[in-house]
Amino acid sequence: MTDVDVIVVGAGLAGLSAARRLTAAGRTVRVLEARDRVAGRNHGGFLSDGTPVELGGQWIGPDQSAALDLVAELGLETFPSYDDGDAITFVDGRAVRYADETFGLDEVSLAEVGRLWVAIETLAAGVDPAEPWAADGAADLDRHNVDTWVSANTDNALARGFFRIIVPAVFSAETAELSFLHFLAYIRSGTSLAMLLTTRTGAQDSRVVGGTHLISERMAAELGESVVLGAVVRTITQDDGGVTVAYENADGTPGGAVTADEVIVAIPPTLAGRIRYLPALPSARDGLTQQIPAGSVIKVQVGYDRPFWREDGLSGFVISLDDAFNVVLDNSPQDASCGVLVGFLEGAHARAAERLSPAERRALVLGALVKYFGPEAATPFDYVEMDWCAEEFSRGCYGGRLGCGVWTQYGHALAAPVGRIHWAGAETASRWNGYMDGAIRSGRRAAEEILARSQ
Amino acid sequence: MTDVDVIVVGAGLAGLSAARRLTAAGRTVRVLEARDRVAGRNHGGFLSDGTPVELGGQWIGPDQSAALDLVAELGLETFPSYDDGDAITFVDGRAVRYADETFGLDEVSLAEVGRLWVAIETLAAGVDPAEPWAADGAADLDRHNVDTWVSANTDNALARGFFRIIVPAVFSAETAELSFLHFLAYIRSGTSLAMLLTTRTGAQDSRVVGGTHLISERMAAELGESVVLGAVVRTITQDDGGVTVAYENADGTPGGAVTADEVIVAIPPTLAGRIRYLPALPSARDGLTQQIPAGSVIKVQVGYDRPFWREDGLSGFVISLDDAFNVVLDNSPQDASCGVLVGFLEGAHARAAERLSPAERRALVLGALVKYFGPEAATPFDYVEMDWCAEEFSRGCYGGRLGCGVWTQYGHALAAPVGRIHWAGAETASRWNGYMDGAIRSGRRAAEEILARSQ
Repeated sequence: MTDVDVIVVGAGLAGLSAARRLTAAGRTVRVLEARDRVAGRNHGGFLSDGTPVELGGQWIGPDQSAALDLVAELGLETFPSYDDGDAITFVDGRAVRYADETFGLDEVSLAEVGRLWVAIETLAAGVDPAEPWAADGAADLDRHNVDTWVSANTDNALARGFFRIIVPAVFSAETAELSFLHFLAYIRSGTSLAMLLTTRTGAQDSRVVGGTHLISERMAAELGESVVLGAVVRTITQDDGGVTVAYENADGTPGGAVTADEVIVAIPPTLAGRIRYLPALPSARDGLTQQIPAGSVIKVQVGYDRPFWREDGLSGFVISLDDAFNVVLDNSPQDASCGVLVGFLEGAHARAAERLSPAERRALVLGALVKYFGPEAATPFDYVEMDWCAEEFSRGCYGGRLGCGVWTQYGHALAAPVGRIHWAGAETASRWNGYMDGAIRSGRRAAEEILARSQ
Repeated sequence: MTDVDVIVVGAGLAGLSAARRLTAAGRTVRVLEARDRVAGRNHGGFLSDGTPVELGGQWIGPDQSAALDLVAELGLETFPSYDDGDAITFVDGRAVRYADETFGLDEVSLAEVGRLWVAIETLAAGVDPAEPWAADGAADLDRHNVDTWVSANTDNALARGFFRIIVPAVFSAETAELSFLHFLAYIRSGTSLAMLLTTRTGAQDSRVVGGTHLISERMAAELGESVVLGAVVRTITQDDGGVTVAYENADGTPGGAVTADEVIVAIPPTLAGRIRYLPALPSARDGLTQQIPAGSVIKVQVGYDRPFWREDGLSGFVISLDDAFNVVLDNSPQDASCGVLVGFLEGAHARAAERLSPAERRALVLGALVKYFGPEAATPFDYVEMDWCAEEFSRGCYGGRLGCGVWTQYGHALAAPVGRIHWAGAETASRWNGYMDGAIRSGRRAAEEILARSQ
């Protein structure tokens, strides 16, 4: 049985960042990854012409310093997301083309959205994402979901509709599915609602040349044989002497076991809760992982010979309150050697679309793109889907969300070590929770916990 | 490797009822139970004088025919719960003693509770618990949690407080933690809110002589060696040829495997989701088990030499809007050879109380009982706690609840077989969902699915 200082479960950004930090401090590590690849929710794909397309997390914002610095350190480069030209909002059967910050809303609805927006930002300013349960009025904020809060605060149908589309765009979950306190904490952890929703200068500002999966691949290359692929962790046993992590192969055949002084579990909470822990975890930690379901998203990349929408002065950015495939952006390569539209079936739309056949789903997506961009959208040269809910080793994206009552009653257990077990992953981050940047920070934080202990 | 017709995972009421039905039809079965005992959430305990006390589910109502018939078939008997005399409600620092159906509420608050009650019963009448998603307005009912619905419909603080105590009493979860649609479906599945909340003639009408765990024990005795204890199921593999269920021992050491044509998974959804399935389950089924967390309850039985409260004309029934240990009933043996008070720390109170030391928790409980019943309550001869959240093979009681959006988007996956895998358990029942009666019905339904297939 292999013995190392620290075992890391999961070779996504969190786990690899932890392993990298520990290795730099001279610790021996073993990273156990269930998949036959690293990078977790940052899987990289290619269109048939070789154009790289990010099948998972893809954007980095200007104040995501952990991600930006890591990209630079690893010798990677970023390039700006394309966002020149007009956006379009579809609502009530109409197309509204706009070039400002209005989201295409009429004046009355825009004012109402603005009023709610300010109220939300004001409340978010009072929530420390490291301890949302300590905010003034936390218990009351945690009784509301986003839908009931918005509905209680406006009768404007379009304003409600606006939040019912931007919340799935950020959380891949419906407004009713997350606590209003979680919404506030998440906003605050990502600076502001404006920051989360903005392309250039916001959280969707730039992309990594070649794809974000390269960040994980380069870290894994540094770690070499410390990273074990195809190791599905099933049981973590701890006692006074140390910790043993037992795994099997992806096909269920027997794997092996590694022993160490400490372990970092760097996988999404809903998966962390499926591991068997001996002794069993405290109730609060188990109750927590029962209540952080992953979001639902099918991400679709559609490749065209050229970004033809740019010729019409369109940025490619579309939101539609009328359609299922309702958030679209230009995801063409930097040199525009072809045109790529990326779009999302999120939350309820993802769950419904999973019940369609692939052909029906493709027809749904291309039908929406034709509506948005005209008949040329009907004939892509490639169409690539990624259904994150169907992935056994993600079971949803973008990340886990907390429903009503969870932050205030269980939040204390989110990142607190249990004996020799430490928790990492984007969901545990207090800065940029749910983002690649947060994942990196969480891995480093878990590594620092261990280094501080053994000093 | 053992080969049988059907494997059943879980030896609670659901699993054993399924196994019993299949055995009666001539099928060979193997029941794999993780614990070293049967009966799941019906564990039986004893006070130090030998008095049996139900540590889990204990009551049977008059229209729970599946449970009543099974009890009779197995040669067991029921006896009426004690409910003679006055109840007390504690609210705003006052004790209100009453003998009617008023719950001790003042006239104005009572009228308001009554108005909401009628509205809830009316809405519940429109929800078919076999398909709550098909109800008129289901999507809107599923956006609200119980708290936001009640708060939107009354400003009366006491009426809100009333629902904030009766919902945890039924669900061991807070009003904000369940979808209003789930609340309605659950009420309808149990006939009416009045039925759920009433002791005599209601869901708490009677008890089983010797304890409810005897129901499972007698079924297990009939099944003999078909029931395997200490078998912690980890992996279920299905293919064209059949299904293989692999298990380990409770301490994590290697167990064995059984093959069969079909399997019934008769454990709570949050535990069913921790098994590894090969091939992986469809997204909807996995997403569902990510979103049915178990309730939180610590059930406490306190034994006294005699039921001294009866001498004061008290029934032993207390609810308190002011205290954590806030629902208490007389749980003395039928012959009143000693006095037993049973009470509950539910929902938020359970989660908070788990962080106390055993001595602090006992002091909290006995302090409440002294407040309710006077100084004699301070000196019980025995005190027995059962924290269901801490149980590795329950991870909460009374049962799983569905949050906002889950019924309407995932309900279809709750009981639908996935290939050779069938789902049972109280959470899957459309009649008496969450109750012992529902568990029994669910096991029979799963057995009938299999028998119908192989005809």
